[in-house]
Amino acid sequence: PRVVVLPGDGIGPEVCASAAEVLQKVAPDVELDYQLLGGGAYDQTGSPFPDATREAVMNCDAVLLGTVGGAQNSPWNALPRPLRPESGLLQLRKALGVYANLRPVKVMPGLESLSPLREDLARQVDVLIVRELLGGAYFDPRRAIEGDSAYNTIGYSKSEVDRVARVAFDAARTRKKEVTSVDKANVLEVSELWRGVVQNLRDTEYPDIKLEHEYVDSVAMLLVKTPGRYDVIVTENLFGDILSDLAAVIPGSLGVMPSASLGDGPGLYEPIHGSAPDIAGKGIANPTGTILSVAMLLRHSLNRDAEARRIEAAVQAALEEVRTPDLGGKGTTQELGAAVLKALG
Amino acid sequence: PRVVVLPGDGIGPEVCASAAEVLQKVAPDVELDYQLLGGGAYDQTGSPFPDATREAVMNCDAVLLGTVGGAQNSPWNALPRPLRPESGLLQLRKALGVYANLRPVKVMPGLESLSPLREDLARQVDVLIVRELLGGAYFDPRRAIEGDSAYNTIGYSKSEVDRVARVAFDAARTRKKEVTSVDKANVLEVSELWRGVVQNLRDTEYPDIKLEHEYVDSVAMLLVKTPGRYDVIVTENLFGDILSDLAAVIPGSLGVMPSASLGDGPGLYEPIHGSAPDIAGKGIANPTGTILSVAMLLRHSLNRDAEARRIEAAVQAALEEVRTPDLGGKGTTQELGAAVLKALG
Ligand SMILES: CC(C)[C@H](C(=O)O)[C@@H](O)C(=O)O
Ligand SMILES: CC(C)[C@H](C(=O)O)[C@@H](O)C(=O)O
Repeated sequence: PRVVVLPGDGIGPEVCASAAEVLQKVAPDVELDYQLLGGGAYDQTGSPFPDATREAVMNCDAVLLGTVGGAQNSPWNALPRPLRPESGLLQLRKALGVYANLRPVKVMPGLESLSPLREDLARQVDVLIVRELLGGAYFDPRRAIEGDSAYNTIGYSKSEVDRVARVAFDAARTRKKEVTSVDKANVLEVSELWRGVVQNLRDTEYPDIKLEHEYVDSVAMLLVKTPGRYDVIVTENLFGDILSDLAAVIPGSLGVMPSASLGDGPGLYEPIHGSAPDIAGKGIANPTGTILSVAMLLRHSLNRDAEARRIEAAVQAALEEVRTPDLGGKGTTQELGAAVLKALG
Repeated sequence: PRVVVLPGDGIGPEVCASAAEVLQKVAPDVELDYQLLGGGAYDQTGSPFPDATREAVMNCDAVLLGTVGGAQNSPWNALPRPLRPESGLLQLRKALGVYANLRPVKVMPGLESLSPLREDLARQVDVLIVRELLGGAYFDPRRAIEGDSAYNTIGYSKSEVDRVARVAFDAARTRKKEVTSVDKANVLEVSELWRGVVQNLRDTEYPDIKLEHEYVDSVAMLLVKTPGRYDVIVTENLFGDILSDLAAVIPGSLGVMPSASLGDGPGLYEPIHGSAPDIAGKGIANPTGTILSVAMLLRHSLNRDAEARRIEAAVQAALEEVRTPDLGGKGTTQELGAAVLKALG
């Protein structure tokens, strides 16, 4: 199998290097193909999503991504929108057709005290957020700045809602069988459509799953107040962007969280943290989120659950020995990566 | 001066009764005019925002609102959208032209332990969220369900952004002089317009204010992780709906939070909690949010800051003696209201 690696910008190359070693160790038969994405890609080729990258990702089994983007004052942010690093990421998602972004959020045993929440609440968190990734305001062509006004459109079709809801229901079947669909149906027509499709799918094909509908403002509250109440959350792109980041902060250790973006072709795997330009190149970035993304890659794209579990156990063991500064320790990227490799035996 | 009181649904009548007594006590010259809004208004008149209510609010100095809406399974939620309780609230906002929703969020001394956040973090919270209340997806007429698709439009004009940003900058001048403008300018054109207008206003008329621009997903994280970093936050309607509820949960006592919605005419004042149909009629709802909304009413609409401060001090004193169940106590609405009246002397 072939995995395209897109180290990207900021700390991306450091964390990807570490994760690639882990992947090579547990699955030596996997071939790695390094390509460019983001600001660095623009600097070298004039595009944040170069043709060579497009071709490579369209012909592989899975994609491992580091991070893209620069500091707030980076010249990349002054480029026309389609040339900015984020645009490379959006084009990549679109090209791969990855419509479902999966973000498991859980407090790792031993790291509870890092949570901004009270420990008893933090301990309860075990939620999977399924964010629709190719619809809504992100890609709707009905958008413009026109003189003194501007607008974007949150549009969804029934089939776009249906396919991502399926991912959520299927995931719930492997968990507690509870799905919370999040919308703003008391105000938005597009939410009314969303709610109807999700309910209909539950009633016709997933009668074994308990489904609740909640408003996005209420979920933002309850994720903090009683985070243990959620099993699987499914929502549209913009709400999902906000809620998945909100949920991710609860364990207090952004650096350890992975994500998977799935569609009908190759999946896309990346840590949820940003490019952290302030620590880039210092060798102290936490590679855990990327390493755990490799585990998701093995599970979802290569169908190798045993190897995925081996990595997850090794990470758990390694974190008992080495912690990077974001986890309150003094370990380096290299040391934590080495500890994972050692734990893998 | 004349204040229209809209008790509304659920616990609204109970908390309004308590707050009205407080208002009468500190400002006996204020005339109260009770009118209908929400589900009860629909039941009695066929409209959630009856003509009599419209006329009364257009000819008063300020409006005090309880809460509107029923339980999830209420028949009101099966009505056509324009007849639902929430629609009454939206029509009221529109009629009054209240484009700026102000939500001060602060942990009350003595209540820190109620916060879902670690106490050291909770203690730091002192933020004012200014939410744009009449624009964006809430009121944009470009909206529809069309066959298998649906859409809503997030539209803003420069003047809509300018007027709410002014409210935020003016408020910041009475606080720490720091404004964070929240958008999703890396994806949305409407955010790019928003950002430009806010920056321009800062540069030309508020050079004394420190302005930061942050992305909505990042703010959702940082409000939980380091809530002390924000002074005034200003944002568009939908983001504001989510972030203001998120911020409100931090003090752990939704029942004590007030809000003010301001425009060029009469202001609208209401507690931020919902209609809580599960405890309606039991006499145990916390009236504090509504009583503190009366304080905001006196300050912003009647220009009586001294009376506002008296109420705020009395509430603080009363909460040391009586706590309703939401605050971990056994006090009733009536007992807490009486304690506030007593503290007012
Ligand atoms: C960088 C940005 C376009 C992106 C998004 O909003 O999707 C990021 O916030 C994310 O969540 O992956
Ligand atoms: C009831 C609903 C329409 C309303 C809103 O979204 O504005 C509420 O959530 C609020 O924040 O006041």
